Amino acid sequence: MIEFNVNPGDRGYRVRVEGGAVAHGFADALAVLPPGPVAILSDSNVAPLYGEAARRSVEASGRKSFAVTVPAGEGSKSLEVFSRVLGEMLSGGADRTSSLLALGGGVVGDLGGFAASTFMRGIPFFMAPTSLLSQVDSSVGGKVAVNHTRSKNLIGLFAQPAGVLVDPAVLSTLPAEEYASGLAEGVKAAAILDAELFARMEAEREPIRARDPATLEAVISRCLRLKADVVEKDERETKGLREVLNFGHTVGHALETALGYGTIRHGEAVSAGMVAACRLAERTRGFQAGETARLETLLSFFGLPVRLPAGTDPGRVLAAMRGDKKKRGGALRFVLLERLGRAGPAEAVAEAQVLEVLRGIGA
Amino acid sequence: MIEFNVNPGDRGYRVRVEGGAVAHGFADALAVLPPGPVAILSDSNVAPLYGEAARRSVEASGRKSFAVTVPAGEGSKSLEVFSRVLGEMLSGGADRTSSLLALGGGVVGDLGGFAASTFMRGIPFFMAPTSLLSQVDSSVGGKVAVNHTRSKNLIGLFAQPAGVLVDPAVLSTLPAEEYASGLAEGVKAAAILDAELFARMEAEREPIRARDPATLEAVISRCLRLKADVVEKDERETKGLREVLNFGHTVGHALETALGYGTIRHGEAVSAGMVAACRLAERTRGFQAGETARLETLLSFFGLPVRLPAGTDPGRVLAAMRGDKKKRGGALRFVLLERLGRAGPAEAVAEAQVLEVLRGIGA
Repeated sequence: MIEFNVNPGDRGYRVRVEGGAVAHGFADALAVLPPGPVAILSDSNVAPLYGEAARRSVEASGRKSFAVTVPAGEGSKSLEVFSRVLGEMLSGGADRTSSLLALGGGVVGDLGGFAASTFMRGIPFFMAPTSLLSQVDSSVGGKVAVNHTRSKNLIGLFAQPAGVLVDPAVLSTLPAEEYASGLAEGVKAAAILDAELFARMEAEREPIRARDPATLEAVISRCLRLKADVVEKDERETKGLREVLNFGHTVGHALETALGYGTIRHGEAVSAGMVAACRLAERTRGFQAGETARLETLLSFFGLPVRLPAGTDPGRVLAAMRGDKKKRGGALRFVLLERLGRAGPAEAVAEAQVLEVLRGIGA
Repeated sequence: MIEFNVNPGDRGYRVRVEGGAVAHGFADALAVLPPGPVAILSDSNVAPLYGEAARRSVEASGRKSFAVTVPAGEGSKSLEVFSRVLGEMLSGGADRTSSLLALGGGVVGDLGGFAASTFMRGIPFFMAPTSLLSQVDSSVGGKVAVNHTRSKNLIGLFAQPAGVLVDPAVLSTLPAEEYASGLAEGVKAAAILDAELFARMEAEREPIRARDPATLEAVISRCLRLKADVVEKDERETKGLREVLNFGHTVGHALETALGYGTIRHGEAVSAGMVAACRLAERTRGFQAGETARLETLLSFFGLPVRLPAGTDPGRVLAAMRGDKKKRGGALRFVLLERLGRAGPAEAVAEAQVLEVLRGIGA
């Protein structure tokens, strides 16, 4: 078990990474919650697998609990489902002494964090992420949101959880593509912030791919600690420090938009986006081609794409990039590596160079 | 013009009370806002009266603006209207450098504050309250919310405005009953916190009733300052200090519920509720009957009810009180006066006494 504190702004919380915690119980981690009934928010995939174990931990902590289950998938981040969740919280007896346990992936974390933060002007929420993407990334960071019909994550808050429990053992039930997609954000954290972690992921790529809980405990907690370091210094994304976390995301988001959300997984898009960013860095800041090769090799080993999906029109990806909110003041913004483990923003990247790079990794 | 700072938690803001400010322009007060386009949120009553003046002030401050207008009335505090407001903000070109000017009464302030606080994880909002209720009370306090279909104000946040501009001159266009309803919260502030202000309101009851802007400038700013003092010490309602602000509200809320929301104005219900609380304090803590008489005289002069509406069943009011969220741990909770200008919570009030008091002021 590995534990550490995250202290953004005025409220700190504890992150525990422990293989097997969900099955063995984590009642003690829930001591940070108020005494009232706990709404266990989960989705239709996760609830049947881990809902009962979570209920036992909540009850063992001396609190009443009730289940709120939403359909699996991004569609549950709508205002309609949000409203239904609040209604079920009322029906379940939630009041100002209550809290919410978000048991699931990114959708459940985003929806649950937003619901808890606005229910009766805010009750605490506890994150128990069950996808690798949320374990390695979104469970720490303090961003929660639901979608507007016209814009993803438009309706949101910066809101810190009361605590986070990450159990890598639950990843065993994850579909292979979901698992790989999550690894992309882990590789990203290493690539931008920690060359040593990157080398470790290369060395331990086999047990990582095999989802070995002990290896993952160490790797995930290191990724989360790296992210927490950034978030602690820039809780509300006002100082530009969080921007490095967008490495691979300029092209990644554009790919998701150009292909249509849901066509490509977030981590897959980020994977190809990281390769694109490295190619761009080779051209603009002397990033070593050998380092790009190391990144590509690791991503490929994990089953992640290092080229654009077959048939992708680079022009459409560029167009989507122009529309992306990361673009400011007319110029495309990229996060580029100087070397593995060190990243920084690049202002005013020329569109012609981006297009060349996209063509270079096109299929 | 009277100005003062409010400093709850880590973010302070400035309140300006100035008769005629809306007509004369208040561009300088908007200097606290970020440089991007300002969404001027208003309702179908207020927009035609003051929308153009507000637009001129925003443009004079060097910012672009666009209008977002919702139907007047509590119905606009729905998730549907909230979603529509966010859509119109997108259409108007709002981004993270934008802000929102809430120009209207409590509904616009609540809806606008919540919309701004959740739009792209939060942009600043500026309050320009146009009803007396919002000028004297809700514009300071940091509570914003929309309604759930099953519960009023269920979906909300503690969120502080970037600034507040109160112009008593705009009250000239308010319907008489709306104006009186707002005075109830002003009388409340004096009754619980400031005997001197109460005496002043008695002495200046004529110019107050006549809506004299100079008199109102002084009275409103004093009421807001009193509220700010409480809010500064208990921003998130966690220390029980804000509870005194609920004077008159135990019976008031119950009356609104028992009669059906919209049947009686909030201030009217609070007015009768304050009289009930004083009668109760006479019985339980030796509050002087002469002070109750002073309160009743002042409220009556302002056209506010000091009895339950004709035909009200005291038993139904008591039943509604039991269901009220202010009730904790099985006992009815009241805020009672020790004397005019001094209030405190009363635990475990006997229902029989409450019923007697309600019968005593029944029609």
